[in-house]
Amino acid sequence: MTKRKEMQLALQMVSGYGAEFSAWRMPGTDPAAYTNTDNYVERAKIAEKGKFQMIFIADTPALTVDLGPQTPSFPMDPMLALMAVARETEHIGLVATHSTTFNYPYNIARQFKALDVISRGRVGWNAVTSSTPEAAANFGMQVASRKERYAKAHESIQIVQSLWGSWQPDAWTLDTEGGKFADMDKIQPINLQGQYYASRGPLPIPPSEQGQPVIFQAGGGAEGLELAGRYASGVYANPYDIESARQHRQALRKSAARFGRNPDDVKMYAGFMFSIGATEEEGLERRRQLMSFNPDEIPSRVSYLGSMVGLRLSVHTVDIDRPLPAELLERTYASPQDPRSPRALQLLKQGLSIRDVLAHGVINYHPVVAGTAVQVADFLEEWFLADVTDGFSVVPDIAYDGVADFVEQVVPILQERGLFHKEYEGNTLRENMGVPYQYGSAETK
Amino acid sequence: MTKRKEMQLALQMVSGYGAEFSAWRMPGTDPAAYTNTDNYVERAKIAEKGKFQMIFIADTPALTVDLGPQTPSFPMDPMLALMAVARETEHIGLVATHSTTFNYPYNIARQFKALDVISRGRVGWNAVTSSTPEAAANFGMQVASRKERYAKAHESIQIVQSLWGSWQPDAWTLDTEGGKFADMDKIQPINLQGQYYASRGPLPIPPSEQGQPVIFQAGGGAEGLELAGRYASGVYANPYDIESARQHRQALRKSAARFGRNPDDVKMYAGFMFSIGATEEEGLERRRQLMSFNPDEIPSRVSYLGSMVGLRLSVHTVDIDRPLPAELLERTYASPQDPRSPRALQLLKQGLSIRDVLAHGVINYHPVVAGTAVQVADFLEEWFLADVTDGFSVVPDIAYDGVADFVEQVVPILQERGLFHKEYEGNTLRENMGVPYQYGSAETK
Repeated sequence: MTKRKEMQLALQMVSGYGAEFSAWRMPGTDPAAYTNTDNYVERAKIAEKGKFQMIFIADTPALTVDLGPQTPSFPMDPMLALMAVARETEHIGLVATHSTTFNYPYNIARQFKALDVISRGRVGWNAVTSSTPEAAANFGMQVASRKERYAKAHESIQIVQSLWGSWQPDAWTLDTEGGKFADMDKIQPINLQGQYYASRGPLPIPPSEQGQPVIFQAGGGAEGLELAGRYASGVYANPYDIESARQHRQALRKSAARFGRNPDDVKMYAGFMFSIGATEEEGLERRRQLMSFNPDEIPSRVSYLGSMVGLRLSVHTVDIDRPLPAELLERTYASPQDPRSPRALQLLKQGLSIRDVLAHGVINYHPVVAGTAVQVADFLEEWFLADVTDGFSVVPDIAYDGVADFVEQVVPILQERGLFHKEYEGNTLRENMGVPYQYGSAETK
Repeated sequence: MTKRKEMQLALQMVSGYGAEFSAWRMPGTDPAAYTNTDNYVERAKIAEKGKFQMIFIADTPALTVDLGPQTPSFPMDPMLALMAVARETEHIGLVATHSTTFNYPYNIARQFKALDVISRGRVGWNAVTSSTPEAAANFGMQVASRKERYAKAHESIQIVQSLWGSWQPDAWTLDTEGGKFADMDKIQPINLQGQYYASRGPLPIPPSEQGQPVIFQAGGGAEGLELAGRYASGVYANPYDIESARQHRQALRKSAARFGRNPDDVKMYAGFMFSIGATEEEGLERRRQLMSFNPDEIPSRVSYLGSMVGLRLSVHTVDIDRPLPAELLERTYASPQDPRSPRALQLLKQGLSIRDVLAHGVINYHPVVAGTAVQVADFLEEWFLADVTDGFSVVPDIAYDGVADFVEQVVPILQERGLFHKEYEGNTLRENMGVPYQYGSAETK
């Protein structure tokens, strides 16, 4: 088999507005998008037109932000949103986060597998352990130790996968004439008993067209790498630069090999944000406008930017609409703790105003390209040709038009350059990710 | 307010086939209906055309039957099925069972409230404690004592309702110009700590158009009556005859009054099954055909029928296609333990063949009318005018055509007789059930 040379794209959906703080206030955006499932369905349809491999809905079961200036960070309910999308799309994959800590394995297994069957094999489960204290409190828990959370995660994934495999592939006979709905000899309990979770099974759901949902992973650290290497076919990673992407991918591949798997069977998707304009100036202006909605946030952002380059910066002592004064610029250095620092420093040295340096997204969680579609494509090409990731989890600034801009402007460039497929490879998420069929638990496959 | 004089109708959906054992084998039925959500959506649309107040999906998280001859008794996933229905209907209520034992209150609160918001206020939660050992085993539990299960149920419902009310009704400001998404002073934690469950909250979901989902209850016994009287606005009951319906409804109303509520605010829906034909003979023939698919089941049904009337009956000693021999008929008597016995005895005495007595559904869980639409309407009218129930939870024998038959043939008769509404009273389930608005926990309303 020749090595796959095309990148893969996941569209990261959050609360329905896009990732930026003030996306909900942008003209055109439905301010009540949070409660209107149409927004998910429409964005997913556009992404499917753009041949995205999947949409991905991140989730934490808690309110974690101040809803005064900003929207919730997560959907009302990820599975209901994906169900709506499933019925109105044909090919695009449907991935959601569900916590291994705050859900019984049987309930996870059931709802994901049901959606996988309904969508004809397009579902993925991003299994996370959740360390958010607000989430734990919603379940009457405290955040457990990392060790315990990961021990629970292993049990959860193993039980879920075993439940998924509790019907043998040919158990569903559907013989109306002979009166045999299923072959009960081929539907067996799993009888798994762990320290934290147990389940008898079977799960009363037949195999989907891809067997069972695809496992994704998103956490970091040694425990996260182990979980990914052992079970995951897809990993959402958050490297800020090429070098950290390379390191993370190598660690993932090594972990997969350690568990006897082919490293090519674990695909990494690097988080990436964009703001597209007809010119670079327009892309930047879009982000300036987003910033302008919340002037109250600017002082803390300026101070944060300062800390990234070794300065104490305050809106009271510098004019943010001008470049950093030369005497301050002289004293800057990139923080070795923050991979975003070199980029911030580079832009400051180019003489951009402090406001514009911020508008370029240097303090964002993911790398940001604010500019033209060609610049966005160039960025993705550079990373992809450096062979540091299998694809990207792209996060629109404003979902309302950002998804369409990417699909209409960036995707054709990537396709022309031979970097992205022009048609879905198959009907299931596994086929479109290029990962092998799996049925039942990893141990028994 | 004058007393409501029209009955209410709930369509009970089970696995997608209808309630009868062999429904999946009937010509016209999609044998794979279990995995095809279209079946739920189509049936719900027909029920909405018939102005049904709600569809109701019962559930137990376990495989409880032998899938050799029969289909699963429950859907792959009730919430996903209701989500599909929500997007393709406008008025009909959407009720699903969720166990208070096998779900964290936060997860119940979240998914039901999200669906309630998405459906614009049409959702109900049938809160049950679940005593099925197979279900408990799927969660690594054993069936707890009745006392403990109900104690958990009280905590669960109180936490869920409090989470539902954690946004004050006017908290969602959505002020794009002023940049105020919500008023955080009006979104508060609930901080409930029980013996079994706890949750901090708030739930990040605004009020729905009916405030929050409607609570339903379905269990029996003193504990069930208490739960219903304290929290429920709707109760699915299973009386077999008018007298037991009257007793159950009186007990429900008394329980509501004991908790300081208006007894009229708790609506009872009596389970009812039907098989409709152009003539009584055709209705019966439909049920004979259903029985004929599973000749293996007949010996045990005959023996069961015998036990209901004080006889040891065997297919080896009687001809089931003939009436019960006179010498046996003489010795029959109605079992005082089984409210279905008088009806069985009556039909045997009328000289029906044993097969036809069974075809009339005398050993079914709910009362059955096999006959014409007029006979079905007569049955419903008799119960309703006896003032022993607020409505019916009707269970089609075969969903494929049974729902349409009821809507096209029975509903117009009920409407002509002034027994059933011709138009929805409002947009929300509460409005269409005629129960008051509630927001937050029962204690704080």
